[in-house]
Amino acid sequence: MRAVDIIIKKRDKQELSKEEIQYFIDAYTVGEIPDYQAAAWAMAVVLNGMTMQEITDLTLAMAYSGEAMDLSHIVRLAVDKHSTGGVGDKTTLVVEPVVAACGLPVPKMSGRGLGFSGGTLDKMESIRGFRVDLTTEEFMQQLRTVGLVLTGQTADLAPADAKLYALRDVTGTVQSIPLIASSIMSKKIAGGAQAILLDVKVGSGAFMKTLEGGRELAGTMVAIARLTGRKVVALLSDMSQPLGFAVGNALEVREAVGMLHGQGPADFHEHCLVVAGFMLALGGLAGDEKEGYRMAEMALNEGRAWQRFRELVSVQGGDVRYIDEPDRLPKADLIQTVQAPRSGYLKEINAQVVGEAAVLLGAGREKKEDSIDHAVGIVVHHKVGEHVESGDPLFTVHANKLDLLNEACQRLLEAHGWSDGPVEALPLFYDIVS
Amino acid sequence: MRAVDIIIKKRDKQELSKEEIQYFIDAYTVGEIPDYQAAAWAMAVVLNGMTMQEITDLTLAMAYSGEAMDLSHIVRLAVDKHSTGGVGDKTTLVVEPVVAACGLPVPKMSGRGLGFSGGTLDKMESIRGFRVDLTTEEFMQQLRTVGLVLTGQTADLAPADAKLYALRDVTGTVQSIPLIASSIMSKKIAGGAQAILLDVKVGSGAFMKTLEGGRELAGTMVAIARLTGRKVVALLSDMSQPLGFAVGNALEVREAVGMLHGQGPADFHEHCLVVAGFMLALGGLAGDEKEGYRMAEMALNEGRAWQRFRELVSVQGGDVRYIDEPDRLPKADLIQTVQAPRSGYLKEINAQVVGEAAVLLGAGREKKEDSIDHAVGIVVHHKVGEHVESGDPLFTVHANKLDLLNEACQRLLEAHGWSDGPVEALPLFYDIVS
Repeated sequence: MRAVDIIIKKRDKQELSKEEIQYFIDAYTVGEIPDYQAAAWAMAVVLNGMTMQEITDLTLAMAYSGEAMDLSHIVRLAVDKHSTGGVGDKTTLVVEPVVAACGLPVPKMSGRGLGFSGGTLDKMESIRGFRVDLTTEEFMQQLRTVGLVLTGQTADLAPADAKLYALRDVTGTVQSIPLIASSIMSKKIAGGAQAILLDVKVGSGAFMKTLEGGRELAGTMVAIARLTGRKVVALLSDMSQPLGFAVGNALEVREAVGMLHGQGPADFHEHCLVVAGFMLALGGLAGDEKEGYRMAEMALNEGRAWQRFRELVSVQGGDVRYIDEPDRLPKADLIQTVQAPRSGYLKEINAQVVGEAAVLLGAGREKKEDSIDHAVGIVVHHKVGEHVESGDPLFTVHANKLDLLNEACQRLLEAHGWSDGPVEALPLFYDIVS
Repeated sequence: MRAVDIIIKKRDKQELSKEEIQYFIDAYTVGEIPDYQAAAWAMAVVLNGMTMQEITDLTLAMAYSGEAMDLSHIVRLAVDKHSTGGVGDKTTLVVEPVVAACGLPVPKMSGRGLGFSGGTLDKMESIRGFRVDLTTEEFMQQLRTVGLVLTGQTADLAPADAKLYALRDVTGTVQSIPLIASSIMSKKIAGGAQAILLDVKVGSGAFMKTLEGGRELAGTMVAIARLTGRKVVALLSDMSQPLGFAVGNALEVREAVGMLHGQGPADFHEHCLVVAGFMLALGGLAGDEKEGYRMAEMALNEGRAWQRFRELVSVQGGDVRYIDEPDRLPKADLIQTVQAPRSGYLKEINAQVVGEAAVLLGAGREKKEDSIDHAVGIVVHHKVGEHVESGDPLFTVHANKLDLLNEACQRLLEAHGWSDGPVEALPLFYDIVS
């Protein structure tokens, strides 16, 4: 087999065989196929698409390009959760302890933020000492003894995906549902997931801007799961305004800690319980997602989820005083609350603009190499649909540089859209695909 | 400017600006843009196309990516010829001496063969000692004193094109009229051509299999010439059967030498005079191509073209005894003539199959690194439309290995198609685009 023939076949809109995809991914992983051939192939995939069979073959080829994890001797049925990323999405910090508290072991590998989209690892690193670089042995051991792990992806997990993703990032080949879906699913399968709850975000603060796009991505991932024998549910959830109020690493940890104590924004609370409910149903601990929801609610209300979170922080080297007294978390020098410039109903809080303002302040990365400032970020004080009086607090900016504070305030004012007449609140979820 | 943004723009079917194309090509030439970004960009161009303005900007960016030649102090109006390549196309060996003999200086840079398509440099190297690696100084000097040069491309001529072409070859991005047309025209412009005769081959033995494709390529190159202020004529000529009889390096030199002495296949004779006629008209030495044709005919008939060819061989270090007595040219060990298996009219002599049989024998290269055997090749004895009696000589194979001889004979028998009823001869030319 020759790489160039496989490229030409895809260029000419023909379907690649399982063997061709396997060869291409294996040879690329070990460096026999150079980056320039993989780049031409990726562009042909972006422009010509892939069939469901090709997408599934690609997913499996990438999933097994390194050491795939086998969790079956520890967990009866490993359930994983994946969010496609958004602004203020700190769901993992609450959902995983909730689910673990209900008795379902949680072997969670998370990622870092890029662009306006935040990352769970960055958030957790606001807690001094918290380690996100567990070895595979530590991962297994902690899953067995604590039943809850939250760490970064190990180096040898789906190395083909890691290599291809880095290449796509610099060759304009990110935007492709076959490539996005196979990338996500390959990591989940390599991580040993037998069931997957997909939280597909749609809206300005998500990768998928439209419900139609989100539906296509969700449908593709659900089909991959089916074809590879995994259980799956995909939720289409709103990301046109931030989830909850806080955006920024330490600010989000503080909001998550509040939630684990039963206090916090209603949308975030509801989102966590719904996601947890579906995970418990997928894992077989609840008869259905409604029963799962009630189990999750109890675990949260009784403080069991908080205890699991505290245990997680402790066992992974984090200083629990940071979550026991969240005032110890990194704090910005400049904190300014901006008031509503008018009265009216909020018809928009543009999540992408909020996310970009957070990146501007230093909370996120424009490029992978950038370092981040855990203290800075934004707290909005309202949700779309609320009536706000002129002079009410609209949002609070936490910054470490005055010029950035001023620019962020300006952008955030523009991110808020107003209406004189009543505006409906945004739904939390648009649909369920399973 | 960022390479990835330029790739994304082309991926999204937007028109690139002159500045974007210039930046991309310049940065790629010096290695600031890596191969993998150029490969993704090239695939986006293959699949999404380019506007005429983009193609022209790309042509000029590549033409001036190195040292462009300025021949204006030597030649009043430099006329170049380009054939898109075919099987048995030894036109350059006759046309260039003919044109030079008529008083138009010929600064010719040629290429090597690849795949079933032969190359002028390989053919000329059948003549012992003939150099095809002249320096720019030698090139200029010889053009001034002899008025006729036939050599390879100097290294610094359109280096962007050379680099991009090599990349396209291994990334499935050869087949693109914008990229093919700009590649050809950038080399011609870099070589100092003010007027260009394009011989665009169509048919099984050509890169362009259909007249429609050939017309599109010809039209694109003519438009580039217009937009860059060059004079141009494009001929659409047949390449569904071999040109002349001989296919293979030394065999083609022998046929060209015969032609320069006034003996040889009628199609080859006519093809050379038509091409030469157009070149003389483009160069302003003839009032029109018909007058140019008559001038060329005289130069050939009077032996002046032969004298110029002999001078060319001599001044570039070739042993003239090889052309004075063509029996001295490399000769194969095994020469076998195959007879017609039946009587009938020839309706096909598939040029691609003939070209591939020649490559099989060793006359050409499958990959650029392959070495070639100058002695081997094929001589067909008929043209499409001729009536052949069973037992007449059909073709002769010159080989150095028995198994290859046998396989080539088999393939060549299959390349000949028969008809019981009369078949029209194939036209030499289909159209003229100017």
